[in-house]
Amino acid sequence: MREIAVFSGSAHPELAAEVCAHLGVPLSPVRVDRFANDCMEVQLQANCRERDVFLIQPLVAPVQQHLVELLLMCDAARGASAARITVVMPHYSYARSDKKDRPRISIGGRLVADLLVTSGASRVLAMTLHSPQVHGFFSVPVDHLHALRELAAHFRRYDLSRTTVVSPDLGNAKEAAAFARLLGVGVAAGAKQRFSDDRVVISTVIGEVAGRDVIVLDDEIAKGSTVLELLDRLRELGARSIRVACTHGLFAAGALKRLAAEPDVLEIVCTNTVPVPDGEHEGKLQVLSIAPALAEAVRRIHDGESVSALFDAP
Amino acid sequence: MREIAVFSGSAHPELAAEVCAHLGVPLSPVRVDRFANDCMEVQLQANCRERDVFLIQPLVAPVQQHLVELLLMCDAARGASAARITVVMPHYSYARSDKKDRPRISIGGRLVADLLVTSGASRVLAMTLHSPQVHGFFSVPVDHLHALRELAAHFRRYDLSRTTVVSPDLGNAKEAAAFARLLGVGVAAGAKQRFSDDRVVISTVIGEVAGRDVIVLDDEIAKGSTVLELLDRLRELGARSIRVACTHGLFAAGALKRLAAEPDVLEIVCTNTVPVPDGEHEGKLQVLSIAPALAEAVRRIHDGESVSALFDAP
Amino acid sequence: MREIAVFSGSAHPELAAEVCAHLGVPLSPVRVDRFANDCMEVQLQANCRERDVFLIQPLVAPVQQHLVELLLMCDAARGASAARITVVMPHYSYARSDKKDRPRISIGGRLVADLLVTSGASRVLAMTLHSPQVHGFFSVPVDHLHALRELAAHFRRYDLSRTTVVSPDLGNAKEAAAFARLLGVGVAAGAKQRFSDDRVVISTVIGEVAGRDVIVLDDEIAKGSTVLELLDRLRELGARSIRVACTHGLFAAGALKRLAAEPDVLEIVCTNTVPVPDGEHEGKLQVLSIAPALAEAVRRIHDGESVSALFDAP
Amino acid sequence: MREIAVFSGSAHPELAAEVCAHLGVPLSPVRVDRFANDCMEVQLQANCRERDVFLIQPLVAPVQQHLVELLLMCDAARGASAARITVVMPHYSYARSDKKDRPRISIGGRLVADLLVTSGASRVLAMTLHSPQVHGFFSVPVDHLHALRELAAHFRRYDLSRTTVVSPDLGNAKEAAAFARLLGVGVAAGAKQRFSDDRVVISTVIGEVAGRDVIVLDDEIAKGSTVLELLDRLRELGARSIRVACTHGLFAAGALKRLAAEPDVLEIVCTNTVPVPDGEHEGKLQVLSIAPALAEAVRRIHDGESVSALFDAP
Amino acid sequence: MREIAVFSGSAHPELAAEVCAHLGVPLSPVRVDRFANDCMEVQLQANCRERDVFLIQPLVAPVQQHLVELLLMCDAARGASAARITVVMPHYSYARSDKKDRPRISIGGRLVADLLVTSGASRVLAMTLHSPQVHGFFSVPVDHLHALRELAAHFRRYDLSRTTVVSPDLGNAKEAAAFARLLGVGVAAGAKQRFSDDRVVISTVIGEVAGRDVIVLDDEIAKGSTVLELLDRLRELGARSIRVACTHGLFAAGALKRLAAEPDVLEIVCTNTVPVPDGEHEGKLQVLSIAPALAEAVRRIHDGESVSALFDAP
Amino acid sequence: MREIAVFSGSAHPELAAEVCAHLGVPLSPVRVDRFANDCMEVQLQANCRERDVFLIQPLVAPVQQHLVELLLMCDAARGASAARITVVMPHYSYARSDKKDRPRISIGGRLVADLLVTSGASRVLAMTLHSPQVHGFFSVPVDHLHALRELAAHFRRYDLSRTTVVSPDLGNAKEAAAFARLLGVGVAAGAKQRFSDDRVVISTVIGEVAGRDVIVLDDEIAKGSTVLELLDRLRELGARSIRVACTHGLFAAGALKRLAAEPDVLEIVCTNTVPVPDGEHEGKLQVLSIAPALAEAVRRIHDGESVSALFDAP
Repeated sequence: MREIAVFSGSAHPELAAEVCAHLGVPLSPVRVDRFANDCMEVQLQANCRERDVFLIQPLVAPVQQHLVELLLMCDAARGASAARITVVMPHYSYARSDKKDRPRISIGGRLVADLLVTSGASRVLAMTLHSPQVHGFFSVPVDHLHALRELAAHFRRYDLSRTTVVSPDLGNAKEAAAFARLLGVGVAAGAKQRFSDDRVVISTVIGEVAGRDVIVLDDEIAKGSTVLELLDRLRELGARSIRVACTHGLFAAGALKRLAAEPDVLEIVCTNTVPVPDGEHEGKLQVLSIAPALAEAVRRIHDGESVSALFDAP
Repeated sequence: MREIAVFSGSAHPELAAEVCAHLGVPLSPVRVDRFANDCMEVQLQANCRERDVFLIQPLVAPVQQHLVELLLMCDAARGASAARITVVMPHYSYARSDKKDRPRISIGGRLVADLLVTSGASRVLAMTLHSPQVHGFFSVPVDHLHALRELAAHFRRYDLSRTTVVSPDLGNAKEAAAFARLLGVGVAAGAKQRFSDDRVVISTVIGEVAGRDVIVLDDEIAKGSTVLELLDRLRELGARSIRVACTHGLFAAGALKRLAAEPDVLEIVCTNTVPVPDGEHEGKLQVLSIAPALAEAVRRIHDGESVSALFDAP
Repeated sequence: MREIAVFSGSAHPELAAEVCAHLGVPLSPVRVDRFANDCMEVQLQANCRERDVFLIQPLVAPVQQHLVELLLMCDAARGASAARITVVMPHYSYARSDKKDRPRISIGGRLVADLLVTSGASRVLAMTLHSPQVHGFFSVPVDHLHALRELAAHFRRYDLSRTTVVSPDLGNAKEAAAFARLLGVGVAAGAKQRFSDDRVVISTVIGEVAGRDVIVLDDEIAKGSTVLELLDRLRELGARSIRVACTHGLFAAGALKRLAAEPDVLEIVCTNTVPVPDGEHEGKLQVLSIAPALAEAVRRIHDGESVSALFDAP
Repeated sequence: MREIAVFSGSAHPELAAEVCAHLGVPLSPVRVDRFANDCMEVQLQANCRERDVFLIQPLVAPVQQHLVELLLMCDAARGASAARITVVMPHYSYARSDKKDRPRISIGGRLVADLLVTSGASRVLAMTLHSPQVHGFFSVPVDHLHALRELAAHFRRYDLSRTTVVSPDLGNAKEAAAFARLLGVGVAAGAKQRFSDDRVVISTVIGEVAGRDVIVLDDEIAKGSTVLELLDRLRELGARSIRVACTHGLFAAGALKRLAAEPDVLEIVCTNTVPVPDGEHEGKLQVLSIAPALAEAVRRIHDGESVSALFDAP
Repeated sequence: MREIAVFSGSAHPELAAEVCAHLGVPLSPVRVDRFANDCMEVQLQANCRERDVFLIQPLVAPVQQHLVELLLMCDAARGASAARITVVMPHYSYARSDKKDRPRISIGGRLVADLLVTSGASRVLAMTLHSPQVHGFFSVPVDHLHALRELAAHFRRYDLSRTTVVSPDLGNAKEAAAFARLLGVGVAAGAKQRFSDDRVVISTVIGEVAGRDVIVLDDEIAKGSTVLELLDRLRELGARSIRVACTHGLFAAGALKRLAAEPDVLEIVCTNTVPVPDGEHEGKLQVLSIAPALAEAVRRIHDGESVSALFDAP
Repeated sequence: MREIAVFSGSAHPELAAEVCAHLGVPLSPVRVDRFANDCMEVQLQANCRERDVFLIQPLVAPVQQHLVELLLMCDAARGASAARITVVMPHYSYARSDKKDRPRISIGGRLVADLLVTSGASRVLAMTLHSPQVHGFFSVPVDHLHALRELAAHFRRYDLSRTTVVSPDLGNAKEAAAFARLLGVGVAAGAKQRFSDDRVVISTVIGEVAGRDVIVLDDEIAKGSTVLELLDRLRELGARSIRVACTHGLFAAGALKRLAAEPDVLEIVCTNTVPVPDGEHEGKLQVLSIAPALAEAVRRIHDGESVSALFDAP
């Protein structure tokens, strides 16, 4: 079989190192230069020829820089005769641009998918895409993982006898229900009405939450407005305790600090698909590693084993 | 004929406004949003349907951001049913990445050309590309302008009887010779040996410069190391006076201030293909506008008239 | 301007004829032959050369036959030198295959989009796609209309003072809210849990429906299971009267008859994006024509006028 | 070497099973669902990842349904990371649409070839294409088999001392001559004048048939009009006995019954490239299996051995 | 409408000039340089921008040189912003490579079609392709003309009361029959058995030729072996007089001289799709011009009128 | 691993044979036929199926014929199911057409790169391209070798204590400097002013050449005008002895004879990237073989080893 070669862009080298440690393969170095005119040059510093190349880069801030870096890495690997190029994007932020809800805008999620293919990507390994339709934006095979197993393992340590999983909005309720099934508990959901990019009202919560130990589950938390709004509703409805969980903990604009400052939030749980910001969160943050899952998926992709068998939607 | 619609990205709106003023058409507004997750959304705020769309964006710092913005603009215009999309890139910075002089690097000039076409660009209007071969990186038609006419018009105001045009390196000497022909003066050139991205030695100057009024001509000045090196040689060789001219005045890393600080540099002349940095340059900087030339090229492209007839290499 | 030429496949010639009547252009004939080996041959029977060609074909049953017929029509128009080929698909049934929720299935909505482009389609005019992300499956421009104006005009004839619009599921609630805004009334939504392709349970209804005149609004009604389930909930909750409305009235497997047989359903309203089945529906069915809207969109596409200006999401 | 995975669409599962039996590999199951809106969903029910996938589907009636099913199978295999996808089409019915003999028709043979490639087909294994030029319609490699060996083996059991092979038309005469060479007998041909899709006149027969045991050989028999016409000529010319042979026994519109009803037709021989219709043919039909030949070709394709070496035109 | 611009390669400038004379447009000059290393450079010496460009070049000997020249012309026109590029190939010699009748050969007719599209050709105007399937090798629209009208006009000057049109082989018989219908006379055909590229045996002639004035009609005459063989048969069968006609008079390897030397060949008629060789043909050669037909087709393509209406297969 | 199969076009079979001898693999035969109409047909006469195919063909005169032959070979290999097709072009003559220095010309270097990919080339192995940017014209991976090691090995046999390497022009000076470093000697360069394709003036020589043993180094020598001009300058400047070296010894138009006739030229050294012309060169010509280098590169490409590690620019 062709040998494996794993490279990391500058977005999240810690995750890449952890994935490589689990795989038992070295993380090959990448040199990223910035010229006087601000253009980037990327050099993959290990032989790619006929290798099964994996490029690890979540599209986190600064997104445009990490995106162009990733495109240059794909192109470099192709020019260096890689046998196959798998882009490992634990967080595909442009997936949120998935529809044309105003005239004359770009559907960024589709465009970036096409740019990756133009640059040489043979396939993509993604995690918890914002909507499942984004899968169809890619013209190359996509393996789409989720982190529910990792999150469930974490929460099983608690007494779950009075627990309910709550999705902040109905769109995400399917994933919350799957998570609740994994935990053997009930599910509820907020009926969210979004008014603008940063203002949201949760009109109501469907399902019983009074006196329950609530686990709020969302796919990503950026500014956290939705979750904060939901917390108000949960309090009004008499929830007994609150924990917050998500896959992508972006925590932009002080979101982590604001969530941690809520006294009745006992815990904030996310995974390391994106780098976790440092800062004051009063010890409430728990970061779970999806590196073992990514590593296993990479291994199966490399060995031609079924990935769906492992990560099937529960 | 289809109507024209001109949009500007955020890289250089002043130039776009000036081009539109010369064309006598409005500059249509563009809304650029940045989401909480740092992704961009671009909305072209005027009807593009069946229009002849021109998108003006030099790839200046922050380059990756301006590049992705431009790709999103192309895609938005295509999705909005533009009849034709001409990317007007007065400065194509990635043109410097035009060869694979180390293993496993990307040829960025070719990749970005492909990304533009993937995003919907039908054609490109460029100015003074770093090397003429970069033209061949594009799979769509390119109109390649230069700014020698504008520069020549500026210098004709002086007594040119003792003037010599000096190219800092032999690679650019052809353009310097063309410029000298336009002015009716002689030409000389430095024989540059490049050692790294920011260290350069000019070993010698070919041609007579002793007692001459020198105009140093380069295609772009970024950090200015090459020109500063050349100034040393010119002084040693007894040049009488020195003026510095270029098309793309990037002036990165304090280059403008350092050049202006040289007492025997009488004048620094560039064009407005890129925004000129503010700052202390002791009044030595002269910025010539290439907006009339771009406007005339846009008009000819729109009207189907020959562009080469106007801008033919002199 | 290039002349217009409109052709209809065999899926819905009545709609095509009506669109042409509104446009004031003839509906050009198409000959569809079936050979002894069951292959189809399509001949467009009017000159297409340099024409602005529109091909009208909703993908209704028998879907595969209508799809292949449409692909052959695109190819014939391209081979006949059409200047532009717009596929008018008032109902894009494959849009429901928009995600890969099981391993080793095709994402049919993306595949069919690619097949249309391969066959020569330059652009698409669609109506009320199952999910807005499907827009991003197309690599050519899509104009995406909706039928809310037509539906609203119909219901404004009634006393709406006690009316509430109810969406059968949360996913569609956004459209129901837009429709309610058009009518100046309130909105509610069922929280649907889908268990299989033909069995659905509506667990609850969010919003007030007791004593209200309810208009149930869905994008399409195929077997009608969801709506029937919702009717049970509405009765339990004490709705005063019920009307049912949708854009795509597929009414498969006797759905129309079953809905009409519900005594408290006063009216069933759909549009003619698909042919309405004949049969016993006790006069409860009202079919609204979207031919004027399609005709106006075709006219604007042909004339290069903004389509979004007309059909903007309310 | 990559493992092999063989799937069959619903067109001819018996043939697929027989091919797999010869190969000694399992026939992997395929689930084909039809939704309420008549759209199909295909699920390949065995791991395709990095497998050498073969999809067996002759394009027989209902052709459009089998075609779309095949396209969905290709797309599913590609999305499931198949290493290579070989479409095994023992009968490519659209090959008859190979020219544009009327204005504004589609060349279906080329279009369907392009659709297969768009859907993910890496290569094609076909048998006895209607015209050899159809090979050139594909942009992927094609292995083009014939069934003359199988037919010849069948007829060698007879006394061939007075046998002549007769092609119903001159276009097919080359294949008939090859067949005659295999049998070591003479050849003759009808000079067919085609007037419409279902009416044909055989004006004459070139070559000696009086007193001969005739084997009529055609590539396919659909309605059988040509052969029936030829039988009249052969009788007039005094043929001693008549046998009819073809590769693709479509036998549409009662053709088999009508042929079998001719008293002087001793035998009708075809292969199982397409499913043989049941019915009254008075025991005259002999169906030869091309499964061993297909299996051997699949094996050679999989193992990288020469296919032409085996199936070279005799 | 966009203006027209017509250029001729070096293969047949006389024909191009004649076409332009009929169109009433100038033939724009082309400069073809050969460098010291034998590479060609082509410069189109008239503005192509937004023009409707026609490039006239039959692929005659030296074929490879004329082909590469044509590819360079296409690319130059595309790079010069032509609105549309129509390749006018009165003779497409590579059409004879239309099948893969031996392993590991190229299907040249398909490859060259793809090369033309890669080089920028938007459409093709061809005449009397070797087989009608070659049309399907092109992924761009093809207008396929024939020269039967011109040939018929020529022969109508004679007394046709005892005339029969004879096709040298059955494959071409359809065209001969069409020609006979145009002249109102009968048709016959040779049953050709081809043994190698330059040795052919006409086994028999189907139809009555004894005592007839024969017009032999073929699509092209290269070495003329087939026709010479047919002449022997015609003499044996007692034809009264013989005339020879074809569209493409290649007359390679002394074919014209050899045919003209046959005493009973009264006349040899061809068209000027290819340049006619000079030389001793005893005044028997008549060259008919298809320039008016090409010019009318070019005009109709340019004006968007139906071409099939004019040149429909009779 | 897939087996290797090496074929040679008719441009330089001696080189191909030598490469194969070094590789220890047979050179598979190719049959090239020319039809009566001057079209070529190429048959690869060894199994290509799943093989790692290498096609060796420098683009030397007659260039267009060798180019089309190569395109046909690529297409034949693709159609014959080659696993990978590497075009080995020791001399890529069209690389000189690398810019658009006049309006409406083709950039032949880019066009031919695209034609090769259209024809099926998976990758390219080239040597000493005219400009390094030409690498970026290819959309497939390119391995770009040079011959400096071979040239250096040859010259090390001499006393190099007074030797200087001289580049005829500044553009090539970088390579001359690299060569000088390999030899441990100094470097100088002519400042060439090119006036037309066959007239050149060397204005001056930068660096010390008086009393030196000069090795003139150029990438290719076609007509030799530049070198002859340089010789004049070197004599004027008092060079002690002169040797001439280049990679591509095209020696067109009697260049070899003219150079050899110069009495003070002691030796002319080139490699066998192109066939060396026979003729009178007074024994001064030394031809070095790059077959070992090509063979080693082919082996490394086949085995997936780093090529840059071996041939890195010194």
